[in-house]
Amino acid sequence: MIKPYKEWNKVELENELERLKIKFKEYKNLDLHLNMSRGKPCQEQLDLSMGMMDVLSSKEDLTCEDGIDCRNYGVLLGIEECRRLLGEIIEVPSDNIVIFGNSSLNVMFDCISRSVNQGVMGSTPWCKLDRVRWLCPVPGYDRHFAITEYFGIEMINIPMNENGPDMDLVERLVSSDPSIKGIWCVPKYSNPNGITYSEEVVKRFARLKPAARDFRIYWDNAYSVHHLYEDKQDFLLEILDECKKAGNPDLVYKFTSTSKISFPGSGIAAIATSPNNIVDIKKQFSIQTIGHDKVNQLRHVRYFKNLAGVKEQMKKHADILRPKFELVENIFEEELGGLEIGSWTKPRGGYFISFTSNDGCAKAIIARCKKAGVELTPAGAAYPYHYDQRDNNIRIAPSYPPLKDLELATRIFTLSVKIESIKLLLDK
Amino acid sequence: MIKPYKEWNKVELENELERLKIKFKEYKNLDLHLNMSRGKPCQEQLDLSMGMMDVLSSKEDLTCEDGIDCRNYGVLLGIEECRRLLGEIIEVPSDNIVIFGNSSLNVMFDCISRSVNQGVMGSTPWCKLDRVRWLCPVPGYDRHFAITEYFGIEMINIPMNENGPDMDLVERLVSSDPSIKGIWCVPKYSNPNGITYSEEVVKRFARLKPAARDFRIYWDNAYSVHHLYEDKQDFLLEILDECKKAGNPDLVYKFTSTSKISFPGSGIAAIATSPNNIVDIKKQFSIQTIGHDKVNQLRHVRYFKNLAGVKEQMKKHADILRPKFELVENIFEEELGGLEIGSWTKPRGGYFISFTSNDGCAKAIIARCKKAGVELTPAGAAYPYHYDQRDNNIRIAPSYPPLKDLELATRIFTLSVKIESIKLLLDK
Repeated sequence: MIKPYKEWNKVELENELERLKIKFKEYKNLDLHLNMSRGKPCQEQLDLSMGMMDVLSSKEDLTCEDGIDCRNYGVLLGIEECRRLLGEIIEVPSDNIVIFGNSSLNVMFDCISRSVNQGVMGSTPWCKLDRVRWLCPVPGYDRHFAITEYFGIEMINIPMNENGPDMDLVERLVSSDPSIKGIWCVPKYSNPNGITYSEEVVKRFARLKPAARDFRIYWDNAYSVHHLYEDKQDFLLEILDECKKAGNPDLVYKFTSTSKISFPGSGIAAIATSPNNIVDIKKQFSIQTIGHDKVNQLRHVRYFKNLAGVKEQMKKHADILRPKFELVENIFEEELGGLEIGSWTKPRGGYFISFTSNDGCAKAIIARCKKAGVELTPAGAAYPYHYDQRDNNIRIAPSYPPLKDLELATRIFTLSVKIESIKLLLDK
Repeated sequence: MIKPYKEWNKVELENELERLKIKFKEYKNLDLHLNMSRGKPCQEQLDLSMGMMDVLSSKEDLTCEDGIDCRNYGVLLGIEECRRLLGEIIEVPSDNIVIFGNSSLNVMFDCISRSVNQGVMGSTPWCKLDRVRWLCPVPGYDRHFAITEYFGIEMINIPMNENGPDMDLVERLVSSDPSIKGIWCVPKYSNPNGITYSEEVVKRFARLKPAARDFRIYWDNAYSVHHLYEDKQDFLLEILDECKKAGNPDLVYKFTSTSKISFPGSGIAAIATSPNNIVDIKKQFSIQTIGHDKVNQLRHVRYFKNLAGVKEQMKKHADILRPKFELVENIFEEELGGLEIGSWTKPRGGYFISFTSNDGCAKAIIARCKKAGVELTPAGAAYPYHYDQRDNNIRIAPSYPPLKDLELATRIFTLSVKIESIKLLLDK
């Protein structure tokens, strides 16, 4: 029977620490280079899409259903069949879709950049305002926060609970403060804690009454079809439709991409939003480019065909990812269970396990792992300005390393958690 | 012996007009739909790059020379071999190159957007300034002017002469007015008049002493290898090197793309600039994206291999385009020679013939062509704010239509020139 560390006496803890340090040194001597820092698909996952490389080999293949030669200039919003495919993935009609390049992050960046320069549907450009603020459910996605920080937008933390962001706080702030122009959301299998927003949360989002008419919800549905289990899947209410029903049709920008469906570096990104917002976006878009890569759009459509094709592919991704998540969760249970020095999420999809250490331990654990050659997402990354007030959040990305490496990395991680937790207990 | 129209008497002109109008009606009755409005490659040109579609078929093919799997995330500045290839095309070392997506226009837009939001290498962001001005050699590229107009930048016309822009004026304005932040240049086979800047002009650009330290030359070298003749090619001095020699290393952003080398919608774009400028660009770039489409970068490298491969391809493009340019030039000579109602350029490369009508005729000619189903670039497009003061500039893009259509379109065009020129003479 395992006793929580906090119930051990000083001598017991010191002996345990000695023993763990010897073990740590053994790992350190292996001179490892393991990486669990980013939500990066592994080689086997990339191999799943190799069929995409030869679906367009003759020139006849390169004409899309409207009769347009996809090799040439034009078709600003994307070819119809690709808008339909991405629409199916993100659950909106193709008319609501605009196809972009290979990165949904770039689409989000451009949306904020446009708002800063030009405003939103005729509003004052944000660069002309003294103060622009933004809501950031935490822990969240570091690259989101980096964008708002880059533009000098003041970020406000919003606590996450098991159903999504604290909606009482969101409603109060959004309805009272006209300097609040947006909120970052990863509503399904959220980065990093794997939460899917409940129906009630989505409905409350759709019914927001913002003080700023240029407030938009940045709904990054990055993991819409990225389930780990066939029999246990989260369900997310479709927000564009809810906004329409609530009389708020222009409230949301939805983002999606095929980055973790086909090739991460060479996928297709899209925005899904209201006709009014599309008119607004198009004003910039038509000046910025003649059109995005239609050959790659067509390549995706020819390969996946439709949502069924995408789902088929996602099952194969899940078959590769599931054992990795389960391995990490099992080692966590085996090594840390009962010690009361950390808790962790068991997500049903997405790319991350979120680990919560004892307060004041996260930085030290991450630094220790690094000494033994295990790279984790930097401490504080899941918080605006990299500031994790309680210093207890660690994001684990199990997708990239092969199982053997992942096991080693996870053992080194749990060992580091133990060592740093004991050190903190002894310091008290 | 043909007599200039202006020497014909009223009755002669009226009879001629009557005759031409009957001919025009015959064309109109054909209900044609011909397009000479954009510099769009034709189908045969697209076919030249079909070999690109199967150079990456096995997963082994997808590893670049640094050992990186091009299907995955990362490599912000582009894979080394692609930086090298684009560097060869634009005549700078690969270290000076950053690879982007499929559109050099998008790169230029983003450069200005970044300067508006963030300034240039620490300067005041342009959105905080009361006035930002820009020099626009005219006639020029309509999409350039659309970008500066979109950002509310005040555009100043700079006359072009046969060696490039009027450098006396450029030097005077740039050195005296700190609100002037940039100049648009298409230095080789310029859009639309096919001029290549002389060595002296390039050297004078490199030696500019701008009043604004955030002034940059936007050097859109879109047609660097786009010759029409093997034995008659224009030479353009490489400006990045000249700037360095002149002690102005950070003065220029060079842009290039493979849009008119491989597939217009699915090429690779790049910027070439100084290390300092790259550091500045990277600050934005690293927030905006995780990296551009490396599979497409690799596809281009594997297909073209090096500059020799690109040149080989460009010869084939030239073989398709040359007869089109010559056809238009021959019909112009045959139909308009000696009438003194228009002059036209005979470029050695690029995508356009620039036609100069009698003053006050261009709009009417373009409108008349449209009535007979021939679409030309809109009147005034080659000028900021679409304002062609003398109303005499028409851009002809002969690349897209098949020869048979091109002949018809050109006949309708010359007929329209004659009709509108006579009408103007009769009105006087």
